[in-house]
Amino acid sequence: MEFAKYKKIYDYSYTLGAFPTLELINNKRENVLKIFVHSSFKNEEVLKDIYLKVNKERVEIASSNKIFNILSDKENIFIIGVFKKYHSFLDKNDDHILLDNPSNMGNLGTMIRSSLGFNIKNIAIITPGVDFFDPKVIRSSMGSIFSVNIEYFNSLKEYKEKYKNHLIYSFMLQTNNYLDTFKFNFKKDYYSTLAFGNEAAGLNYDIYKNENPIKINISSKIDSLNITNALTIAVYEFDKQKRNNK
Amino acid sequence: MEFAKYKKIYDYSYTLGAFPTLELINNKRENVLKIFVHSSFKNEEVLKDIYLKVNKERVEIASSNKIFNILSDKENIFIIGVFKKYHSFLDKNDDHILLDNPSNMGNLGTMIRSSLGFNIKNIAIITPGVDFFDPKVIRSSMGSIFSVNIEYFNSLKEYKEKYKNHLIYSFMLQTNNYLDTFKFNFKKDYYSTLAFGNEAAGLNYDIYKNENPIKINISSKIDSLNITNALTIAVYEFDKQKRNNK
Repeated sequence: MEFAKYKKIYDYSYTLGAFPTLELINNKRENVLKIFVHSSFKNEEVLKDIYLKVNKERVEIASSNKIFNILSDKENIFIIGVFKKYHSFLDKNDDHILLDNPSNMGNLGTMIRSSLGFNIKNIAIITPGVDFFDPKVIRSSMGSIFSVNIEYFNSLKEYKEKYKNHLIYSFMLQTNNYLDTFKFNFKKDYYSTLAFGNEAAGLNYDIYKNENPIKINISSKIDSLNITNALTIAVYEFDKQKRNNK
Repeated sequence: MEFAKYKKIYDYSYTLGAFPTLELINNKRENVLKIFVHSSFKNEEVLKDIYLKVNKERVEIASSNKIFNILSDKENIFIIGVFKKYHSFLDKNDDHILLDNPSNMGNLGTMIRSSLGFNIKNIAIITPGVDFFDPKVIRSSMGSIFSVNIEYFNSLKEYKEKYKNHLIYSFMLQTNNYLDTFKFNFKKDYYSTLAFGNEAAGLNYDIYKNENPIKINISSKIDSLNITNALTIAVYEFDKQKRNNK
């Protein structure tokens, strides 16, 4: 099997680096097609972990650097995983993040990592939006994408029709509801969805105005927060209130 | 005057793009040496703002694209500011952020933007650490660096000798003090310093262990938060407590 630079149309993708590759192995072992280990890689602990969990025939010590040169974009990468893509669906009995048209790969990965860090394991993406299987997303997620469910929807309407027991909270600037005094509603049999817009445009006001708009109060000295920072504050505050509510 | 790609040794630097250039003009007008406007730039409002605030002789409509090609690294940039570097000192009667050896330009800019967003206008940097005048830092700060004071120190000791009335809070993983139940101490005549380590290494435990360690409680599913996200949560929580304390 020959491997070329990642394309969205492929039914497989790559993990670049030891950290995301170990996350792949630990969470989606059944999807691993191949693990390439650079012949100069000497971390015995990582190697032991790989051989313990992955069928030996699927591990290849690459004496040629070819595969690393093709996939690693100038960076120093010593471990590459190849895995079969998979479908996942959101858990209807748990809280969600909803990202409407995320357009930056690094940001998407970072947002997934922060969500998981504050115990949200289900991510809805409203299209268009970048391909979450892109190795750049996986890398910036530090492999956390293998521990969350991600599902694409064509519109907010489609999402709401499928997940009817979720209260949506929409993070946007056009509101006077401020996060630091806001109380999330943890009512029985309902779950929460924290929604964030595109990096440049934010959430569309007309579509989201009736979905509990919330604003993070920032100084007038800056125009807005970076989207990954805004999301991280929101999941931090949500997680804190949820734990205090129990 | 000829302009080449930015180097740290220059006594001037650049703002790339309209947004950071307007922040430069609004906050450090006296340092503006030159504003280049690409001949295809047509935003009348921005142009009016520039001519209103900058001496006409310092504004050059660049009919050749040369300066833009040299400075803009493939991106579409239509406004470039050139400014003389300056020194600033921290305000001893206000709260500080302390960054110990920040090594990524994009992260430094983003952290400055978040700090300003939550009303912290003084940033101490312990060397080594990237050059905050680098155009990449300025860009990712969205020009917010022109609204904060930044001062370099060789060590935590040097910082503490100069700013004696600051209580330092050190964000690190090796502690059981959790941010979401932590109460910052707003005692009279004292100010706060929130300290963060390098992206890869974090704060040095031996140096910071007696400086009020605090940890952000994250799920065991992730290893750590991205540093800019960690800092943003911290300044959000600090700002909230400070306002509630008044």
